[in-house]
Amino acid sequence: MANRNVLTEALDYAIPSTVPTHWYNIAADFPEPVAPALNPQTHEPAKPEELEPLFAKALVEQEFSTERWIEIPTPVREVYSSWRPSPLFRAHRLEKQLGTKAKIYYKYEGVSPAGSHKPNSAVAQAYFNAVEGTTKLTTETGAGQWGASLAMASAMFGLECEVFQVRSSYDEKPYRRMQMEAYGATCHPSPSDITEAGRAMLKEDPDTTGSLGMAISEAIEVAVKSDNAHYALGSVLNHVILHQSVIGLEAIEQLKEAGEEQADIVFGCAGGGSNLGGLAFPFMGLNLREGASTRIVACEPAACPSMTQGEFRYDYGDVAHLTPLLKMYTLGNEFVPPAIHAGGLRFHGMSPMVSHAKHLGLLDSIAVDENTTFSAGLEFARAEGIIPAPESTHAVAGALNYVKSGEARDGEVIVIGLSGNGVLDLPAYGREIERERNQK
Amino acid sequence: MANRNVLTEALDYAIPSTVPTHWYNIAADFPEPVAPALNPQTHEPAKPEELEPLFAKALVEQEFSTERWIEIPTPVREVYSSWRPSPLFRAHRLEKQLGTKAKIYYKYEGVSPAGSHKPNSAVAQAYFNAVEGTTKLTTETGAGQWGASLAMASAMFGLECEVFQVRSSYDEKPYRRMQMEAYGATCHPSPSDITEAGRAMLKEDPDTTGSLGMAISEAIEVAVKSDNAHYALGSVLNHVILHQSVIGLEAIEQLKEAGEEQADIVFGCAGGGSNLGGLAFPFMGLNLREGASTRIVACEPAACPSMTQGEFRYDYGDVAHLTPLLKMYTLGNEFVPPAIHAGGLRFHGMSPMVSHAKHLGLLDSIAVDENTTFSAGLEFARAEGIIPAPESTHAVAGALNYVKSGEARDGEVIVIGLSGNGVLDLPAYGREIERERNQK
Repeated sequence: MANRNVLTEALDYAIPSTVPTHWYNIAADFPEPVAPALNPQTHEPAKPEELEPLFAKALVEQEFSTERWIEIPTPVREVYSSWRPSPLFRAHRLEKQLGTKAKIYYKYEGVSPAGSHKPNSAVAQAYFNAVEGTTKLTTETGAGQWGASLAMASAMFGLECEVFQVRSSYDEKPYRRMQMEAYGATCHPSPSDITEAGRAMLKEDPDTTGSLGMAISEAIEVAVKSDNAHYALGSVLNHVILHQSVIGLEAIEQLKEAGEEQADIVFGCAGGGSNLGGLAFPFMGLNLREGASTRIVACEPAACPSMTQGEFRYDYGDVAHLTPLLKMYTLGNEFVPPAIHAGGLRFHGMSPMVSHAKHLGLLDSIAVDENTTFSAGLEFARAEGIIPAPESTHAVAGALNYVKSGEARDGEVIVIGLSGNGVLDLPAYGREIERERNQK
Repeated sequence: MANRNVLTEALDYAIPSTVPTHWYNIAADFPEPVAPALNPQTHEPAKPEELEPLFAKALVEQEFSTERWIEIPTPVREVYSSWRPSPLFRAHRLEKQLGTKAKIYYKYEGVSPAGSHKPNSAVAQAYFNAVEGTTKLTTETGAGQWGASLAMASAMFGLECEVFQVRSSYDEKPYRRMQMEAYGATCHPSPSDITEAGRAMLKEDPDTTGSLGMAISEAIEVAVKSDNAHYALGSVLNHVILHQSVIGLEAIEQLKEAGEEQADIVFGCAGGGSNLGGLAFPFMGLNLREGASTRIVACEPAACPSMTQGEFRYDYGDVAHLTPLLKMYTLGNEFVPPAIHAGGLRFHGMSPMVSHAKHLGLLDSIAVDENTTFSAGLEFARAEGIIPAPESTHAVAGALNYVKSGEARDGEVIVIGLSGNGVLDLPAYGREIERERNQK
C-alpha cells in the first residue's frame, strides 16, 4: 500500500464551482429534533465518545451536529470533482414514449467510478479516518455498491478495507467482489466463519442467505477487535445522509439552470435511506425554510417494506445488537428479507432522519413489487440508454406509475433519483427478460 | 417494439453547444488518398452501390466522402447529449503517485450508457438505417461493447438487433449478453450453427474460440438473407472512424479550456482503430493543417500486433471473404488471436485510415503485453477510481511506461484515450489480482 496515502493533503487544483462546497444538514431545519440514538446497554441517549471506538471523531461530530451547513474538505471535493456535479438529465425520449406533457428529470449518480451514489459518503468517511490515523476500515455491503465504493475510497486514501457482503448478493453477483478486489479490498460472504457473530448465525441457520443486519454485526466485531481500525456504514446514520446531500443540492441548482422554479415531486428509492435522504432533504429544507412545496415520495420494495409496513420505534441496526438503538421505522432487527435482487434495499429498518421526516408527515412512502420495478427499469433503459440499478428501478417505477395513472399534470416537474446503474446487477433483470421473451 | 420508433424526428430541445455539430473526416486532409476498398470478386475498386446491400445509403456516402466536415443530424446529437461531451479529466492523483511533473489527461468514454465509446457510431448507424426504413441490424461483437451499444441504439430507434459474439467473450463475459438482452437484442455465440459460414467454421474446428473475422461473416450472411436488414460494423470502416471523431474534437476544445496550447502526445488503444482514430485524427488534422506537433501513439496488444508485426497489404475483413478487400496492416484474415481478455482488440487487421496514417508516418505504434496492461489498469483504478476497460489499459500502460521511463518532459501534456470502463470485464483482471495476492 506504499505510496498511496497521498490524498489527505489537498492537491490544490481548481475545482469547478458547481461542485458543492458544503453538505446540508436537515437536523437544523426539522421542526422537532430527531430522537437520539440510545446506548445498547444502558438505553440512555448515546454520547459522542461512546461512538468513537467505531467512527472517526469528525464523523461522530457530524452525527450529532445541528449545524445547517458543514464544509466539505478540499481533498474530498477534489475526489468529488471526478464525477460531480452528477448530471441531471431531462428524460425527453421517455416522455415522448409515455406521451406525457409532464417534465421528467432524473438525477444520475451512476457516473461515479463505482457506479452509484455511495462514493459520496465513502470518500468522506475514508478521508476523515485517514486524517485521524485509522489504517483499516471494515464494513458490510448488500448489493455491493457500498462495499465497492468504500474499497475505492480506501485505495485512494491508503487504507486497508475489509468487506462483509450479504451472502445472497455475494453468490449472485461475483463481479462486485471482483470490483472490490480490483480496488485492493478483501471481501467475505456474510455470515462468515471468521467472526463470533457470524459463527453464531451460521449455527442457528447454516443455509441463511444473510442480511445487512448480520453483516453489520460481523464488520463491527472485526473493527473493534483490530488495531487502528474503524467501522464504516453506508447508509442509515445521520453523517451518511449528510454526505449524500450533495445530490439534492446539485439537483436544485441544475433545475434552476434548466429554467424550472421548483420540483413538484421527487421519487427516490429507499433502503437504508441514504439515497432518498441525500436527494430529498435539500428539497425538504426549501419546503421548511422557504415555503416551497415539493412532494417527496419514498419508493421501497414490497418485499422489505419498513416504512409502509413497519413500526416507528427504537430498534437495533443489526442482529447481534451491537449498534446503538435507533428510533426508526422497522420490521424488527430479526427480519430476514427474501433474497430480493435489490440487495441494497434489504435492510429491516430505515434511517432515523428519514423515519423522522415520514413520522412528521414531510414525505410519503409507497411499496413497489419486484416485477413492476424491473419492467419499469427495462422501459427506462430502452428509452434513455441507462440500465438502472435494481434499487433505482423502485424510484423509476414510482414515477412511471404516477405518470401512467394520469396523476401528473401537464408541465409538472418530476425528479427521479437514479441512484446508480445496473450493469453489475444484470442477472437480476434475467427473470423479467425471460418473461418478456415468453410473451413474444 | 411498438411505440419505440420515436426518435428519427428531432425532439427539438436545446442541446448544449459543447456537443459537436459536425464529424471530422481526415480523408480531406491526408496528403495522399487512402487506397480504395476492392470488390471481393472483381478486385476492382468497390463502387458505392456495391455496399448498399449491406449499409444505409447515407453511411455508404460517408464511407466514400472526402468532405472535411459532415453535419451530425439533430436526433443523433440529442442522443449524444446524454453523455457528450464526455469528460476530459486531469489525472491529478495518478500524477502525484507517479511523482511526475508531466500533465496527464484522460478522455473518458466510459460515461456513455453502454460504458464505452462505441455508442458514438452505433447511434449514428441506427439513426441513418431507421430513417431509410431498415427494420433490423445485425452485427458482430468481441468483448461485447459494440454489441451492447448497437443494441441500445437499436432500441432507441425501434430496430431489431441480432448480435454474433466471439465465443471466447460470450463464454467468459455473460453480463454483456444480458446487457444486450436488456436492450431487447438477441445474441448468439460465434461461430454458431445458424449460418452457413458458422457451420463451416465449426466443421473445421468444433472447439474454436472464434474471432471477430468469423463473427463478421455470420452477421453479414444473416443481414443479406433477411428482408429489410442491414449489417453494422463497430470499427475499421471510414464512416465508423468518422463518427468517433467527436472524441478528439471535444478533447481539443477541452484542453484549450484547461489552458493547454496543444497535446504533446496522445496514447490510444488500437484494435480495429475506431477509438484510436476517433481520438487521434482531429489532433492529426491540426498537425496536417495548422502545423501542430502532437505525437500519436497507437497501443496494441502484443498478442494481436497487426500494426507492429503485420504487413501493409490488401486483405479481407472476415474469414469467409464476404467483405471488400481493404488495404491495411494485417496478420492475415485466417489469424486467430489467442483468447486474450481485451476482446475488442482481437482483430487481425486495422482500419484502412489508421493503417494509411501509420504508413505515411503520421503515427507511431507500440505493442504491450497483457500483464503490463492489467497491472497499469489496477494502478490507474486505485488512483483515479475508474477501472479501465481491458482495451483501454493498453493506452494507460503506454502512457505509464512513457512517464516511468523518464521520457516525459516537465509540463508535457499527455492525453490518454480511456475508451471505456471495465466493470463488465472484471474477470479479465482476475489473474492480475491473483498474482498480486500471491506476492503479498
